[in-house]
Amino acid sequence: MPSYTAPTKDMQFVLHDVLKVTEKSIPGYEDLEADFTSAILEEAGKLATSVLAPLNTVGDTEGCTLENGVVRTPTGFKAAFDQIREGGWPGLDMPEEYGGQNMPCVIGTAVGEMFSSSNMAFTMYHGLTHGAASAILAHGSQAQKETYLPNMVSCEWTGTMNLTEPHCGTDLGLMRTKAEPQADGSYRITGQKIFISAGEHDMSSNIIHLVLAKIPGGPEGIKGVSLFIVPKFLVKEDGTLGERNGVSVGKIEEKMGIHGNSTCVMNYDGATGYLLGEEHKGMRAMFTMMNEARLGVGMQGMSQAEAAYQNALEYAKDRLQGRDVTGVKNPDGPADPLIVHPDIRRSLMDQKSFVEGARAFMLWGATMIDAAHRSHDKDADGLVSLLTPVIKGFLTDQGYDMTIKAQQVYGGHGYIEEWGMSQFTRDARIAMIYEGANGVQALDLVGRKLAQDGGKHVMAFFDLVKTFIKDNAGQDAEYDRAFLEPLKAASKDLQAAGMYFMQNGMKNPNNALSGSYDFMHMFGHVCLGLMWAKMGKAARDALAAGASDTAFYETKLATGRYYMVRQLPATALHLSRIQSGADTVMALDAANF
Amino acid sequence: MPSYTAPTKDMQFVLHDVLKVTEKSIPGYEDLEADFTSAILEEAGKLATSVLAPLNTVGDTEGCTLENGVVRTPTGFKAAFDQIREGGWPGLDMPEEYGGQNMPCVIGTAVGEMFSSSNMAFTMYHGLTHGAASAILAHGSQAQKETYLPNMVSCEWTGTMNLTEPHCGTDLGLMRTKAEPQADGSYRITGQKIFISAGEHDMSSNIIHLVLAKIPGGPEGIKGVSLFIVPKFLVKEDGTLGERNGVSVGKIEEKMGIHGNSTCVMNYDGATGYLLGEEHKGMRAMFTMMNEARLGVGMQGMSQAEAAYQNALEYAKDRLQGRDVTGVKNPDGPADPLIVHPDIRRSLMDQKSFVEGARAFMLWGATMIDAAHRSHDKDADGLVSLLTPVIKGFLTDQGYDMTIKAQQVYGGHGYIEEWGMSQFTRDARIAMIYEGANGVQALDLVGRKLAQDGGKHVMAFFDLVKTFIKDNAGQDAEYDRAFLEPLKAASKDLQAAGMYFMQNGMKNPNNALSGSYDFMHMFGHVCLGLMWAKMGKAARDALAAGASDTAFYETKLATGRYYMVRQLPATALHLSRIQSGADTVMALDAANF
Repeated sequence: MPSYTAPTKDMQFVLHDVLKVTEKSIPGYEDLEADFTSAILEEAGKLATSVLAPLNTVGDTEGCTLENGVVRTPTGFKAAFDQIREGGWPGLDMPEEYGGQNMPCVIGTAVGEMFSSSNMAFTMYHGLTHGAASAILAHGSQAQKETYLPNMVSCEWTGTMNLTEPHCGTDLGLMRTKAEPQADGSYRITGQKIFISAGEHDMSSNIIHLVLAKIPGGPEGIKGVSLFIVPKFLVKEDGTLGERNGVSVGKIEEKMGIHGNSTCVMNYDGATGYLLGEEHKGMRAMFTMMNEARLGVGMQGMSQAEAAYQNALEYAKDRLQGRDVTGVKNPDGPADPLIVHPDIRRSLMDQKSFVEGARAFMLWGATMIDAAHRSHDKDADGLVSLLTPVIKGFLTDQGYDMTIKAQQVYGGHGYIEEWGMSQFTRDARIAMIYEGANGVQALDLVGRKLAQDGGKHVMAFFDLVKTFIKDNAGQDAEYDRAFLEPLKAASKDLQAAGMYFMQNGMKNPNNALSGSYDFMHMFGHVCLGLMWAKMGKAARDALAAGASDTAFYETKLATGRYYMVRQLPATALHLSRIQSGADTVMALDAANF
Repeated sequence: MPSYTAPTKDMQFVLHDVLKVTEKSIPGYEDLEADFTSAILEEAGKLATSVLAPLNTVGDTEGCTLENGVVRTPTGFKAAFDQIREGGWPGLDMPEEYGGQNMPCVIGTAVGEMFSSSNMAFTMYHGLTHGAASAILAHGSQAQKETYLPNMVSCEWTGTMNLTEPHCGTDLGLMRTKAEPQADGSYRITGQKIFISAGEHDMSSNIIHLVLAKIPGGPEGIKGVSLFIVPKFLVKEDGTLGERNGVSVGKIEEKMGIHGNSTCVMNYDGATGYLLGEEHKGMRAMFTMMNEARLGVGMQGMSQAEAAYQNALEYAKDRLQGRDVTGVKNPDGPADPLIVHPDIRRSLMDQKSFVEGARAFMLWGATMIDAAHRSHDKDADGLVSLLTPVIKGFLTDQGYDMTIKAQQVYGGHGYIEEWGMSQFTRDARIAMIYEGANGVQALDLVGRKLAQDGGKHVMAFFDLVKTFIKDNAGQDAEYDRAFLEPLKAASKDLQAAGMYFMQNGMKNPNNALSGSYDFMHMFGHVCLGLMWAKMGKAARDALAAGASDTAFYETKLATGRYYMVRQLPATALHLSRIQSGADTVMALDAANF
């Protein structure tokens, strides 16, 4: 069975050496001294390692079962959920007035990574509740907040998001679920929703469904969609639970992975719902949830890569097979460990350099969310909005690839379920699909985000890279060569791609859209390149300042050098594809495929 | 449930327009007129479509079960196996003297693709039998051939290959299974083998295991390994079945995919075995089987990509979601089909251009095998030996990626088992692992095959590309630009990589091995680039000759142009990685990971 070790040291490095969180003037960050964050991370890490990780295989093999409308979660999930709840983890970065601990998002993100690495299917139950609570927090009336948030922040009640219907996912304008206004101001919700994660389960006393539906007579398409709160049990005036609402689970889907999470078909049969936010403005409210979910899904990608990598690394150190061609390394054993072989190294370094870069990227993104929320920093808000599809699309694609590489290290054993490596890939696979399939992320990035606010945010990103290079060049020729020059080249490729879109997308938008996926990937590479340049600098600074743990910092530098040489140059290939435009992509008539 | 259509038209194009099989002076090829091959392919295609494909999901969901030492295959498998057997398909390319039809390998390959696309797990039962029979054919005594081959060629008996043990897979020198010589010339085989595909099942009256074991007192390591025939039921002098041998199934593995194939732990408990080939020369005999298996596995990669692509294409044409940004395409419907979207096109074109290129590559490879076997052409033999790891490694990696792309087209439905797209990915995943994990293929290519016979075969490959370009350049500027120039550039990259290995691998072999995986992929791209250049030329020639089916040939040209522009340039990225050498790959001490 796979094991999991909380990467708290690496997180501390990113928080304090790289991001220097306490030096940022964001409200709440002044408390984030290293001792303090260490205490939180260690505590969460213990829970992840000793409670959640052992349940990961259980969740995969048992799955969820539906009997007489009741969903049973895998053995041990309920007790673990109680522990998570008792520790106050679901409300870690929620407002104190609703029972949360008001921590910044950057801490919630680090903790979330560990929970997700150790048990992705389990962590979705409170992760989705967080998203639903955020939507109510942002768009709910005071009464709604008071009614729902305290129990959702504590996870006494969990939450869901209901978007997809059998015939529509990405194109929500085709939605059929309807919401009929009632005399008392509520709505009668009728329709079927599919792919509802945690739609029904046995770990909370109530489930608060956020449901997109159309009010009859409203505008056509996506502009006529509203968002509703539909509790499983109606909540009485005094806050206690009242009657069962007209919502039921139709079936649990048989999925490729995340078996521990109950993915439900939900039937709304004249269920009582309450409008959240404004009529026909459901997409806006939904996007509060969705943007948070997209970042969370990006993290799922990297978190599964981390978990898979840890196990592949252990296996590569343990499994004896073949001899080092440059000289025997384990003369007392029948063979050398796998890790001596260059091609195994290549795979492990791919994984390591991705995971550490992605972690820095996630935490850096979280500081921008904090700046946006806590300091009302509009630039940070714009930048993180630009980067959201990159985080979601790039980290889940790459994260998935890394789980495949980790599985490959195991050879035949990787294919046998008992060893657990298959689960990481099967669980990670969904992250490329849900909350907007990655092709949709690429479309969002190129079709919407690039031009947002007159292209201000993408320009800000380029400036940020340029400034970093300028500020740090010329002090250390080796660092310049190994880190700054590749970053500069990659950033130039990215700018050239943006330029190509501007020059060619006007006359034919397909010229831009045919390159959107490549653009998302090259953007992701430049972000990880920037992260590695920052981490490289932080490591160099620490060594220069006489840090005692030289092996740790030297390893960071070596890992960064690897990324810059072996991964970052992918931008050139992406650029060449982008610059080939739409001609070859769109050449065929559909009938001629 | 997914469906499957036999791509017979495309196969005919490769056989006749591209490879011009009847013009090759290979014994047996003179019979391969278009009408004749069409008749065979149509017949096999019908079987694949109507018998094997409907059982693919059944195999996945039911799997194989072990009860009291008896393995039960999924419902319908036995009847389908009878049908395959009655049609004489397992012996299609086996010698007539043992009941085969003596067809060339190129026909067996085309038929094999269809069987594998429609049901990979099922096809392994006779596929492995074919491999075992080939080993007996090549290395067995006359008596062994007469005893085993007729029933194996007909698949009345099936075969297996037993290599892996719990502690050793790639490094077979660590093997512990022993073979003790007996007075009657037989051996007593004792040990445990794992991952034995079709190790036990209910579809044949006997199972002929080919088992690697060490004769005590023989040379250490891999040089002391011998190969043995170990029948499940001993065969009496008169050819009837005698007593049950000391071999039994320990358990069936729970795998990620190919559930329809029983992957067994096999226990040999003093089982009677007969030496196949010479003592201690087991690896040589085993490689007859292994090389055939590696080509078959490469085909599995492309065959799953084909099957997945077919379904993704249908879904993309049917599923209505969103509108074409350049103008509504389906004004009478609520939305346009997915296929209008450029990013869906990109994905479909990636799949289509890979699958068709890979099919040509496989069939071209098969003509070389035929030339080697039927015309004793040593150059062909050397070239296909060089290309074997490329076919295995590149086609399975890329084939797998394509199944992932196909699954992605389905959005959320792709993750739900009911839709069947997950099975293609889960089945295809094993192809990257077994018969030598792809990292081992890369090692074989760079560490062994490149230098084989003084580098003669790789030079022959480069010559072949060069000659093709020279012979075809200057007739059509558009063809030169779209096909020959990209091929030339990619081939130059490949040569530069080879040069780098020569110059830097001597002083440190890790400089070569760190780039082996990238080299395998760039080699694969150049092969597919060559195939597309050949197919492009064939299509152009057909159009020039006034072929009536212009859409078919125009589509080939468009698909080829796509590959040349969007896929082939990956060689530059691979080259840049290769040229970075071992420094960053091997920088870390194992302890510092």
